[in-house]
Amino acid sequence: MAEIRHRVGISGSAAEIYQLLTTDAGLCKWWTTDTHGAGEPGSIISFRFGDGGPDFEVVELEPDRKVVWRHRGEMPPAWMGSEISFLLEATEKQTFVNFRHYNWQQSDDFLAHCCTKWGIFMMSIKSCIETGRGQPYPDDVHIDFDE
Amino acid sequence: MAEIRHRVGISGSAAEIYQLLTTDAGLCKWWTTDTHGAGEPGSIISFRFGDGGPDFEVVELEPDRKVVWRHRGEMPPAWMGSEISFLLEATEKQTFVNFRHYNWQQSDDFLAHCCTKWGIFMMSIKSCIETGRGQPYPDDVHIDFDE
Repeated sequence: MAEIRHRVGISGSAAEIYQLLTTDAGLCKWWTTDTHGAGEPGSIISFRFGDGGPDFEVVELEPDRKVVWRHRGEMPPAWMGSEISFLLEATEKQTFVNFRHYNWQQSDDFLAHCCTKWGIFMMSIKSCIETGRGQPYPDDVHIDFDE
Repeated sequence: MAEIRHRVGISGSAAEIYQLLTTDAGLCKWWTTDTHGAGEPGSIISFRFGDGGPDFEVVELEPDRKVVWRHRGEMPPAWMGSEISFLLEATEKQTFVNFRHYNWQQSDDFLAHCCTKWGIFMMSIKSCIETGRGQPYPDDVHIDFDE
């Protein structure tokens, strides 16, 4: 199984970052402004990017420490069966976000594209905490997948 | 074996991007300003980031299409035995850079950190071509690995 990993140090508390990962208001600030459904484990969060986007079920929450989502639905097909985890690691000076998007069926060009985009969104989480302003869709840094 | 992949579409020709990957002057514009030794296969390129950095041997060059490097030396230890490839894919509107850093011994926090940094440097290649100005070390976007 293939996976994407990122690790970013952020000058902010684990509690602030956890908030960005577990509430509609928080998720809207860094991934897509069209996010609905965040809540306790069992909740289905819909992330929309214009005409479509993925759904994820919240499967595990450990306050200020861990968030795990399982992909639901069929969009995009390559994400079916995959999961995402965010592990927050607080040190004296900053908090590290350890991101994984795992259980991909294959490592291909689309995984590569998503890896670059996840990196861009990790930087969006960082700037959201450090400057008060993230870059969620539709204001995200745009990179095409093809054409 | 673990790997990092990125894919970025750039509004520029494959020839321009190839130049950035195969000459000291080009590499200095997006990865680190302290780069020496780029040349034909067999050349050893030293990339320095302040007090240290990796060496790579150029193992394959296909003009405007493909660049492969093999890690040399012992810095950083986790990169020993790894290789990097850049495949350029020209389409009507832009050129895609397909990046792989593969043959890692393990998928860990350091790989995650490097994945995020490689994404940042892919965006540096993109802005170098599209705006005329990349963000090579020491002007790169800084993210700590620990502390």
